[in-house]
Amino acid sequence: MEQCLREDAQQIIDQAIRAVQPDEAVRRALAGRSFPGRVVLVAAGKAAWQMAHAAVSCLGDRLHAGVVVTKYGHVKAPIPGVTCYEAGHPVPDENSFRGTGAALDLVRALTAEDTVLFLLSGGGSALFEQPLLPGGELQDITGQLLASGADIVEMNVIRKRLSAVKGGRFARLCAPARVFSVVLSDILGDPLDMIASGPACPDSSTCRQALDIAEKYRLRLSDRALELLRTETPKELDNVETRITGSVRELCAAAAAACGRLGYEPLVLTDRLCCEAREAGSFLASIARSHASDGRALAFLAGGETVVHLRGTGKGGRNQELALAAADGIQGLTNTAVFSVGSDGTDGPTDAAGGFVDGTTAAALERRGIRIHRVLADNDAYHALEAVGGLIVTGPTGTNVNDVSVVLIRP
Amino acid sequence: MEQCLREDAQQIIDQAIRAVQPDEAVRRALAGRSFPGRVVLVAAGKAAWQMAHAAVSCLGDRLHAGVVVTKYGHVKAPIPGVTCYEAGHPVPDENSFRGTGAALDLVRALTAEDTVLFLLSGGGSALFEQPLLPGGELQDITGQLLASGADIVEMNVIRKRLSAVKGGRFARLCAPARVFSVVLSDILGDPLDMIASGPACPDSSTCRQALDIAEKYRLRLSDRALELLRTETPKELDNVETRITGSVRELCAAAAAACGRLGYEPLVLTDRLCCEAREAGSFLASIARSHASDGRALAFLAGGETVVHLRGTGKGGRNQELALAAADGIQGLTNTAVFSVGSDGTDGPTDAAGGFVDGTTAAALERRGIRIHRVLADNDAYHALEAVGGLIVTGPTGTNVNDVSVVLIRP
Repeated sequence: MEQCLREDAQQIIDQAIRAVQPDEAVRRALAGRSFPGRVVLVAAGKAAWQMAHAAVSCLGDRLHAGVVVTKYGHVKAPIPGVTCYEAGHPVPDENSFRGTGAALDLVRALTAEDTVLFLLSGGGSALFEQPLLPGGELQDITGQLLASGADIVEMNVIRKRLSAVKGGRFARLCAPARVFSVVLSDILGDPLDMIASGPACPDSSTCRQALDIAEKYRLRLSDRALELLRTETPKELDNVETRITGSVRELCAAAAAACGRLGYEPLVLTDRLCCEAREAGSFLASIARSHASDGRALAFLAGGETVVHLRGTGKGGRNQELALAAADGIQGLTNTAVFSVGSDGTDGPTDAAGGFVDGTTAAALERRGIRIHRVLADNDAYHALEAVGGLIVTGPTGTNVNDVSVVLIRP
Repeated sequence: MEQCLREDAQQIIDQAIRAVQPDEAVRRALAGRSFPGRVVLVAAGKAAWQMAHAAVSCLGDRLHAGVVVTKYGHVKAPIPGVTCYEAGHPVPDENSFRGTGAALDLVRALTAEDTVLFLLSGGGSALFEQPLLPGGELQDITGQLLASGADIVEMNVIRKRLSAVKGGRFARLCAPARVFSVVLSDILGDPLDMIASGPACPDSSTCRQALDIAEKYRLRLSDRALELLRTETPKELDNVETRITGSVRELCAAAAAACGRLGYEPLVLTDRLCCEAREAGSFLASIARSHASDGRALAFLAGGETVVHLRGTGKGGRNQELALAAADGIQGLTNTAVFSVGSDGTDGPTDAAGGFVDGTTAAALERRGIRIHRVLADNDAYHALEAVGGLIVTGPTGTNVNDVSVVLIRP
């Protein structure tokens, strides 16, 4: 039984991670879609090259032209018909502006028949930028905001207005062409206007707020800057369609679908998990223990990103701690397993992606003189799981959409 | 919406706690049952009087005779046909032995047609006892075990064999009469042989284990004591039927049923919750946030007993901390509430039974300058919830079957 559970876990992990690869996510977003006129591709972010590469292979000769702006070292090979820029991250540099400018040149001459395929991933805020003020002045305003104690929301209200592309303005520049925006999300809850400051997302902040913030912190602003704060960002964008893809939600959905194919009835409890890792493990183990005798094949899934408060000096990661803590709670159950895995394949500073435990794990640890509570107190889950074959190792996966934890129960 | 959620919560709490009252639990266990021959009632434990009182009102003139053994001060009034004993708890005294002896006298002369209605509640281990060794010798053996570092499981293996009623022996003495055992459980997971040392439950420990323990700790034992360790306890009892009632499982089931009557689809996640209170709150809030937009009326329930690691000097309890921690996670959701309540009506050293929060709670606290994280760090949930009308107050309920926490989501 334990061997079956372990094999099931491996299949679920493989299929879930495959589903949130940037290439796979783009392919899924484009599947069955057709575009009437010309298609121009603009990809920005750390996964821009990979996303563009997959999109071009879907589009074939439908592609009219394209621009990729990604981080230094992230262009793997030329893509036919696409100009690739490598640029500064997390601080934008001249190459960011140059690449973004090339994208703007591409989209300016389009008609209502045409489509901008906009592929956005993490890091896009720095990589995709066209400032409306000279660099020195921008830095000065950012410095004033930081010194005054403004929070991140207030900073963004100001900064969106000083950019030609943020806060929905890129999509407005694409008009009358349609924008099909594919967003690879690594932020819990997918707040679209937060991802890369939302170049194709209506902005909910107002000029009034921007001016209030300027007054509140007595910002010293040039006439040009003040004029920009008075210029409204788009509140509605009727030429944009957005697909969020490759997020933790899809990771959970793919894991749930894999569970379903293996005969489990899956239930995604949450894709917003953010509590302490070991306590999440205990909670999931309680669920396992209450349902282990239901006589049904059940899978309970929880996605998100738990936290670990380091107190010890051991080696481990949040997924390994979660699994190890669950081992205590499911001790003795012969039909139950709990595993947890980071979609990037790296859990904490270890070469493991996460941990797997079943009803025999606690006893196996005890036979080796390993006490779960002591291991957790020392944040040393890696070595404990290693000793009982409980590490999950995938290697780097090429994606990063948080973690998924799963309870498996066989009848 | 918030008002509706609060009213729903109150109804769910009322109905769940009512369902696990000792009287109600006994009535449910006896509903629709008939007994062919004579019925003899034996009730032991802290809720023995209340359970017997309810049973007698169900049985009417079917009752042949009865004995109650409960804690000093717990007999509220005479019960017709029943002799009530008040005795020592947690240390048994002569009245424990006298009451238990009276029960044994009652059951000895029964036939296979007759039934012993055995009503057991917490505290029964001390209150229902008939030692097979003189008191001084028993105390000496217990002292040796404690001094040698024996654990509670090892202690019980020995002590069951030194008692005429524990480890299934009471049920054996009732034979050939049938025993209908109604157990009011306050132990997570309902381990029957742990509740009052299982007078009507087959014993899984063996003489071999008892003798091994005696050897391991080099116990000094009289010949009589050694002979008792060599005497096996019942491994099977074919004259016993057991109904566990009033446990946290029933608390959850009753809360779920109440949710169902209010139009929610209920799901009991677990009745074994035992993690840190605030982390359970965070986990439940994550579930709420992920399902708040499902467009369905949902209720997620978790029963058990969370823990609080006190670090601050404030006032609160585990249910209040759970709810307050959840307030942070469900902030801004207009259709969602989380509440948590102790079935005994007393959460920590406070006059509240628990806490209720909804999507407006965090903002209401902020308006009063109350920071959730600071309150939790000071274990001061009571005052924070009090300030925003988030305390749940029931007064003492007369039962104690752990806690239940509920997420409510309206469409």
